[in-house]
Amino acid sequence: MSPSQAEHSKTTTPDTDWKQLAGWVERCDAPAIEAYLKQLSETDRVHDLGRLTADARSELLGLVHPEYAADLIEEMPKLLAAEAFEDLTPDNAAEILEELASDDQANLLRHIEPESAEAILDHTPSLAADSVRGLLEYSEDTAGGRMITEYLAVPATRSVQDVIDEMRANVEEYADYAVQYVYAVDQAGALAGVVPLRELLLARPNRSIASCMVNTPVKVRADAHITEVFELFDEYDYIAVPVVSEDKTLVGALLREDVDELRLDEAHEQERNARGIVGGEELRSMPTAVRSSRRLAWLSINIVLNVTAASVIALYEETLQAVIALAVFLPIISDMSGCSGNQSVAVSLRELSLGLIRPKEYRRVIAKESIVGLINGVVLGAILGVLAWLWKDSVALGLVVGSALALNTVVAVCIGGSVPLLVRRLGYDPALASGPMLTTVTDVCGFFLTLSIATAALSHLIA
Amino acid sequence: MSPSQAEHSKTTTPDTDWKQLAGWVERCDAPAIEAYLKQLSETDRVHDLGRLTADARSELLGLVHPEYAADLIEEMPKLLAAEAFEDLTPDNAAEILEELASDDQANLLRHIEPESAEAILDHTPSLAADSVRGLLEYSEDTAGGRMITEYLAVPATRSVQDVIDEMRANVEEYADYAVQYVYAVDQAGALAGVVPLRELLLARPNRSIASCMVNTPVKVRADAHITEVFELFDEYDYIAVPVVSEDKTLVGALLREDVDELRLDEAHEQERNARGIVGGEELRSMPTAVRSSRRLAWLSINIVLNVTAASVIALYEETLQAVIALAVFLPIISDMSGCSGNQSVAVSLRELSLGLIRPKEYRRVIAKESIVGLINGVVLGAILGVLAWLWKDSVALGLVVGSALALNTVVAVCIGGSVPLLVRRLGYDPALASGPMLTTVTDVCGFFLTLSIATAALSHLIA
Repeated sequence: MSPSQAEHSKTTTPDTDWKQLAGWVERCDAPAIEAYLKQLSETDRVHDLGRLTADARSELLGLVHPEYAADLIEEMPKLLAAEAFEDLTPDNAAEILEELASDDQANLLRHIEPESAEAILDHTPSLAADSVRGLLEYSEDTAGGRMITEYLAVPATRSVQDVIDEMRANVEEYADYAVQYVYAVDQAGALAGVVPLRELLLARPNRSIASCMVNTPVKVRADAHITEVFELFDEYDYIAVPVVSEDKTLVGALLREDVDELRLDEAHEQERNARGIVGGEELRSMPTAVRSSRRLAWLSINIVLNVTAASVIALYEETLQAVIALAVFLPIISDMSGCSGNQSVAVSLRELSLGLIRPKEYRRVIAKESIVGLINGVVLGAILGVLAWLWKDSVALGLVVGSALALNTVVAVCIGGSVPLLVRRLGYDPALASGPMLTTVTDVCGFFLTLSIATAALSHLIA
Repeated sequence: MSPSQAEHSKTTTPDTDWKQLAGWVERCDAPAIEAYLKQLSETDRVHDLGRLTADARSELLGLVHPEYAADLIEEMPKLLAAEAFEDLTPDNAAEILEELASDDQANLLRHIEPESAEAILDHTPSLAADSVRGLLEYSEDTAGGRMITEYLAVPATRSVQDVIDEMRANVEEYADYAVQYVYAVDQAGALAGVVPLRELLLARPNRSIASCMVNTPVKVRADAHITEVFELFDEYDYIAVPVVSEDKTLVGALLREDVDELRLDEAHEQERNARGIVGGEELRSMPTAVRSSRRLAWLSINIVLNVTAASVIALYEETLQAVIALAVFLPIISDMSGCSGNQSVAVSLRELSLGLIRPKEYRRVIAKESIVGLINGVVLGAILGVLAWLWKDSVALGLVVGSALALNTVVAVCIGGSVPLLVRRLGYDPALASGPMLTTVTDVCGFFLTLSIATAALSHLIA
């Protein structure tokens, strides 16, 4: 793309332009659609496409040239892309499918109904369809499910010149190949070695591939779990890693680019989980029923946990009746302990992901957290205690509220720090399960501490 | 690295082995240290290094071979690496610095005291030191601050064969160059074009570089902000992009690998922010005072906001006194509204980052959210209302509590959805500022709704 096109990305389209786009879609004006979208930056394109109705989005993909439709699918959020793609006619979808890279083909088909996918593959030339079907057999959280099949494999016995000649003869085909390596295979198709393009460039033309390849290349099994893949790409600096089957046959290549994207998706999902969007990404263009029910599933668990925690308060109605001011402090203590505990959760999640802590090292976490909890608890308790004292002119109320918050802060940070380790040990995702478990326990404990201390000191509070 | 070493990554070292490592550091036994660390997986190495004291970690880096120390620094969490590096003697640190890639050099020095960095650079050979000083002049959130300076630039007038010969002659030096492109420059050093290695491989040897280069290559200004860089790498598929100065001189290259890492760091930071770890990453190996004060800075804002919100409750002491059961429901309504609002925050943050929504489109957000809020509010309100009714055998209490939660859920999701847009419009990081602002407003509103409805219905509640 020319620099002048890159400049365009600076201007933001007015809010109403997508309505014009909707009009062109209605009138099936493919040239106008393409001309309009092509002069937008990627961000603006995604925005405008997102604002169309689901039907219009799908119609648009069917109207533009299949190659451009494939470009748009690669840019769109995956959920929107799959939805729009599924609503195309199978032959139209098949045309677009052929323009995508092998890993994008598999990913797209994985996110639509199996019957729709099969119908589309029936309209795809058999060679391409077989390749996609092969990829679909791998689960999407394995190396095989994320690899590309556009790689260059040559017999190790051939000469460097031979390989370069072949590449020259097939420039068009290989132009799309993102891999920066040539893979050498033996007669059975097993991976024998890897030749970086640079080595190929610098090697004498009459040398054999075998003589200039890396003999024991880093590789990954197609059925390796994606977390293993992440570790591998952390450990080595390669731009791509070959993927082999159980019998060592070369079956694909994993690009760092794709692995990085996957990891970023995972990090974003964890952030969403931390904020209570669980069970899949939500976009506001989704049907209200889906959005509402997914959120409710999470909220229903929360309300049960909340009611359980608050029922502790019900046990102390008499104390509350006697010192009604306590009712003001209960939500404060609940929220503050939740905040303190969540900070501790964040540090444990980070240390777990960096490998600085192992799931069984909860003693170390508690030792470290209890000191921070004690300091912060005393400071926060003092602030709240003084406020309570000044408000009601009651030292006793200040002491009750302050000491309860101080103690509960210690409890919250210790539990917050160790819950992620425990959840990981039990084999669950610590980012997902830590939040509600933590706040329930700290709420119960906070309400109990405040109200039981108040009950014990009741004579001083009333006096 | 051989496959047999890769196999090792499966075994996890016992928890006590790092103590042995500490012993070797104390006895300055460099061979034992290197032998031990080299047989560990990266994860285990990071864990064991993390468990040493800060002093021991620094001593260890000084003991092992500078090249291996550089490898360890690349693996360690950045904070630990910078801390250990800073405590080395300047000449020792300089030796290790020379083994790092240019971008890692700059990053490491950016994270230590300027005087320490200067002392280390004084011990570095002047050519290398000048190059690092040049990089340090760019801010770390610009393209220049993240680029590498190990790239291959050749005059556009030279022949392909010439360039290949030069690469052959300097195989050793260029082996570390991660860039997969040759950059063509004019006489003034300005970027004239880019030749992918593959083009170089396939071009006839007697052609000129100018004839096989991409003439209007995608490039980025050294002072471009990192968010611009993210967009550029989203838009184009390149493994690296050349970086140019204001006068178009080629000054470096940005690797996709490094850009991806930066983006992942940012996503992780957002997750930490969502959980209240603000003002920088926290590791438990940091001094307690740093950990405690950073967390407190955040908590202090929270306690002020919490007290402000809860003071609404104080206005209704008489109502509470009359219907003490309400005190049980206030923390539930506060927490549940916070949860509902946070889900809405998560969706807005996601849509902002995907480009599906623009900061000024708050009307659309509120329209979409209010429907979901109404459905979820009615469901949650009904659950809580029925519980209240059953508990106190009071339909009135159920209606008060249920309607307050229902209404406040609508408020919470509308505010939650629009606050990130507002914060972004004001130019702040929406991930950071949305949480506390949201819960304060929803708390105030929730307490007010519950207690004012209860006050209005007081005669029914008491009866």
